[in-house]
Amino acid sequence: MGNTCRKALILLAGMPGSGKSIFALKAKEYGFGIVSLGDIIREEAIKRKLVLDSKNMMSIAKELRRTYGKDIVARLALKRILEMLNIHSIVIVDGIRNLEEVEFLKSNIDAELIIVSIHASPKTRFKRLVERGRSDDPKDWESFLNRDYEELSLGLGNVIALSDVIIVNEGSLQEFHQLIENFFDRVIKTWCT
Amino acid sequence: MGNTCRKALILLAGMPGSGKSIFALKAKEYGFGIVSLGDIIREEAIKRKLVLDSKNMMSIAKELRRTYGKDIVARLALKRILEMLNIHSIVIVDGIRNLEEVEFLKSNIDAELIIVSIHASPKTRFKRLVERGRSDDPKDWESFLNRDYEELSLGLGNVIALSDVIIVNEGSLQEFHQLIENFFDRVIKTWCT
Repeated sequence: MGNTCRKALILLAGMPGSGKSIFALKAKEYGFGIVSLGDIIREEAIKRKLVLDSKNMMSIAKELRRTYGKDIVARLALKRILEMLNIHSIVIVDGIRNLEEVEFLKSNIDAELIIVSIHASPKTRFKRLVERGRSDDPKDWESFLNRDYEELSLGLGNVIALSDVIIVNEGSLQEFHQLIENFFDRVIKTWCT
Repeated sequence: MGNTCRKALILLAGMPGSGKSIFALKAKEYGFGIVSLGDIIREEAIKRKLVLDSKNMMSIAKELRRTYGKDIVARLALKRILEMLNIHSIVIVDGIRNLEEVEFLKSNIDAELIIVSIHASPKTRFKRLVERGRSDDPKDWESFLNRDYEELSLGLGNVIALSDVIIVNEGSLQEFHQLIENFFDRVIKTWCT
């Protein structure tokens, strides 16, 4: 693909447990580049010698944004995104949290840019997170809701509302794979010749 | 249907031009009850002898919520919703704007309750609103975006992010009708015997 596609950024958003990681994995199979904004936070946690659980990640995410502005994580990721766009024409930026990040990337990167959100109902996401059972995944409904509200307090709801594309991931894993493939096929049809 | 369905509220949300009105019209055809939260604001505008354009509506919506709390519009609509639930088992509450309204209705109404959002991309919604051309619909991209941001400032993004169901209205009107019918058929299958 590389040489025949227009440069394009897919800004990926979604609530916890919606299916962003599966989307990102699939994107890799398609040969797209991936930059994870979560990695930026993770590296900051490592610098500070903190345990990499979702509580510490959220608290760093909030502190960085409070101290340096709401678009700070996108600013810290800019170099990485530009490098990735030199290798891959189509790059996924995983983990967009607010519209200020979107605006920053729009203003600073010369590429097509669309917001893609993955959606699943709270009930479905809760079930998935409990089944996934990572050490820092919520164990009960209340801590699940609290994490949702923390994510929303960053501005994630606004990004989802203004998505260019929403992929609804309410069915089986197989159905979700199919929806992602349909979407990537459309992407390639639109941006590549 | 009336007697054989469980009491249920469908809380309807969506950005301007997403297709909420079409959903509400279709719900009427199905014999569901409709309560429009916009009507509450409209009646307040009439009381104050104001022109019924979106600018005045938005300014009343904001003022009411600032003065009386974020759930005020749901509180003002409660009696109407309860009356409607006496006539129709399934009632649509059109125009939910924040999670406080959702919480208020959840706590004060003994019925099943789901959030349904209609989504279309900003590009598609802009095109539709320009084509619709109501006197107070945005004429250019900037005023369209400003109206979007006003809606988001009320908390609408959070409601959309926490939807139980998102119906994506990106295709033709006919396709949208089909999606709504599929959804209502599922609703009836779930709540009615």
